[in-house]
Amino acid sequence: MEDAIPENANEHCPGPKSESAGKEDACEGCPNQKICATAPKGPDPALVEIADRMATVKHKILILSGKGGVGKSTFSAQLSFALAGVDYDVGLLDIDICGPSIPKMLGLEGQEIHQSNLGWSPVYVESNLGVMSIGFMLPHPDEAVIWRGPRKDGLIKQFLKDVYWGELDYLVVDAPPGTSDEHISIAQYLKATGVDGAVIVTTPQEVSLIDVRKEISFCKKVGIPILGVVENMSGIEQTILDLRFKKVRESGEEEDVTEETLECIRKNAPDLMSLVVCSELFDSSQGGAMKMCKDMQVPFLGKVPMDPHLCKAAEEGRSCFSDTKCSASAAALQKIVNKLLAFDHSNGY
Amino acid sequence: MEDAIPENANEHCPGPKSESAGKEDACEGCPNQKICATAPKGPDPALVEIADRMATVKHKILILSGKGGVGKSTFSAQLSFALAGVDYDVGLLDIDICGPSIPKMLGLEGQEIHQSNLGWSPVYVESNLGVMSIGFMLPHPDEAVIWRGPRKDGLIKQFLKDVYWGELDYLVVDAPPGTSDEHISIAQYLKATGVDGAVIVTTPQEVSLIDVRKEISFCKKVGIPILGVVENMSGIEQTILDLRFKKVRESGEEEDVTEETLECIRKNAPDLMSLVVCSELFDSSQGGAMKMCKDMQVPFLGKVPMDPHLCKAAEEGRSCFSDTKCSASAAALQKIVNKLLAFDHSNGY
Repeated sequence: MEDAIPENANEHCPGPKSESAGKEDACEGCPNQKICATAPKGPDPALVEIADRMATVKHKILILSGKGGVGKSTFSAQLSFALAGVDYDVGLLDIDICGPSIPKMLGLEGQEIHQSNLGWSPVYVESNLGVMSIGFMLPHPDEAVIWRGPRKDGLIKQFLKDVYWGELDYLVVDAPPGTSDEHISIAQYLKATGVDGAVIVTTPQEVSLIDVRKEISFCKKVGIPILGVVENMSGIEQTILDLRFKKVRESGEEEDVTEETLECIRKNAPDLMSLVVCSELFDSSQGGAMKMCKDMQVPFLGKVPMDPHLCKAAEEGRSCFSDTKCSASAAALQKIVNKLLAFDHSNGY
Repeated sequence: MEDAIPENANEHCPGPKSESAGKEDACEGCPNQKICATAPKGPDPALVEIADRMATVKHKILILSGKGGVGKSTFSAQLSFALAGVDYDVGLLDIDICGPSIPKMLGLEGQEIHQSNLGWSPVYVESNLGVMSIGFMLPHPDEAVIWRGPRKDGLIKQFLKDVYWGELDYLVVDAPPGTSDEHISIAQYLKATGVDGAVIVTTPQEVSLIDVRKEISFCKKVGIPILGVVENMSGIEQTILDLRFKKVRESGEEEDVTEETLECIRKNAPDLMSLVVCSELFDSSQGGAMKMCKDMQVPFLGKVPMDPHLCKAAEEGRSCFSDTKCSASAAALQKIVNKLLAFDHSNGY
């Protein structure tokens, strides 16, 4: 397992260019030295237990993002709904320890997990869709989980070795943003048992793409295949009826004129009522995720428009695939799910 | 300093309800025990060095969010621009180690920090606005920083004790989302030197508000005052000219009809051209951040609309206050900055 640990995981902190740079003592403040010095050597015995548990799981997909708030948990939830919808046995594991969104997005808030002689039991949405999250373990939903890395690592290890999933076609793992403890841990533990690969979710913004490049470099370093990149929130698509109209007077006073505006459109420009109104949220003039994928030679899985109805479905823990209002985003998501299902490890897409 | 460490920071991992729950050995997998056992006892000598450095900084404001992608770094950047714009001496410290967005948002990509006999020198946007971020230390922008918590803690400590800020009116600290290593570290180190408090940024979505409640509970636990909550992306406000219109045929084929639609509106409903078009991105029917602030008895600082022009300014490292296109978001942000400037520690707002 040593090869799963990223090359630079034991390097010293970087520092500004200085005369002593490169010397062994250049970074005396780095507390990692202490940890490294006291860490036990040799293979972790938990890896055997994890391998035993994971032996009944056919496919494992890791959902990553560089930046937070790009819709990663929404994607993980909807991917799980989609897979369960075509009768696969699906597990969804939330390893976002400090900000678990998965219980809410699956409509499972307030549920608790229980223990049996087989291990920790997931919470089930339906008989073929089980969910595990720290969100089910908190005494109060407002409670903060104020944990440093080693404890997060400990819980992730427990999720992998102690949860009784049974036979699964797919285990979807929703990770927090970044490339730190949770990511090093999950990469290390999953890699030992075989992992299909990672889907990376982003928005078209350049600040998000910067972090996605880091995530791709992380996957390459730890040896996790990249199944592809999803561009989320690629503009917003609505109908005229979804909009509100405001008149702003010179005094700064605002007046809602939605009703009379819609009436005016119906009377004078009725063709507008059937049009799709698009607006760009984020500047994608630099080519967005598609161009980045080309540059970095990783598969581009598709774009999903920002859809307030999808946001609402996610907030209410519903599948967008059974909500006719989500048609624009659901169709885009389904195309991506189909691509993932068709992926073949020997031949790619 | 012991009191700055959250009460539950040394607790064991939670687990499902089991017979052995509550017993000391209930969580044998928790690796924290090892770390705690080997950690040095007594006050950290770095705290004295941090206190020395911070003695020249009048105000320290921590910018937090529960969830990522809510516009926290954009807010930190624009707050710094605003404070520097009224001639305060401002430092902006980015402690998001794995996903530093601050260099890009201040227009400083590709810059490097240097060391002098006074310490590490920040990178300056203007003479009264200095910035420090790990982003300035990476050999390549795509490089992932694959670090576990102790190394992140080490760098944050170095940022606080080794950076030579000089005399500052405000030090704005941009934190990553969550309540883990970076947050425990910064809270612990800043609290020892006096901190004005934290601004928490959120969107109106319930999934974001859930995490904000955790962030509030974190601040209360570690004893950091809450200066207030900012609701970001509270709907999108545009003019008709910012929109595109699409006709979708029954075959699924799409046609861009923006030009003819605008022509039709100009001719048949010219009043529409001067209206503000609003759409809700996130469902705020449950009251959004304002209601949550009331419930949790923390100050609500205001709403900032989602503004594609603000996103663009942030991506290009510019201040929204000098961009006339950002008028809607800049006005909302300025009101929030004014509130923060007027805050009085004895009397509140």
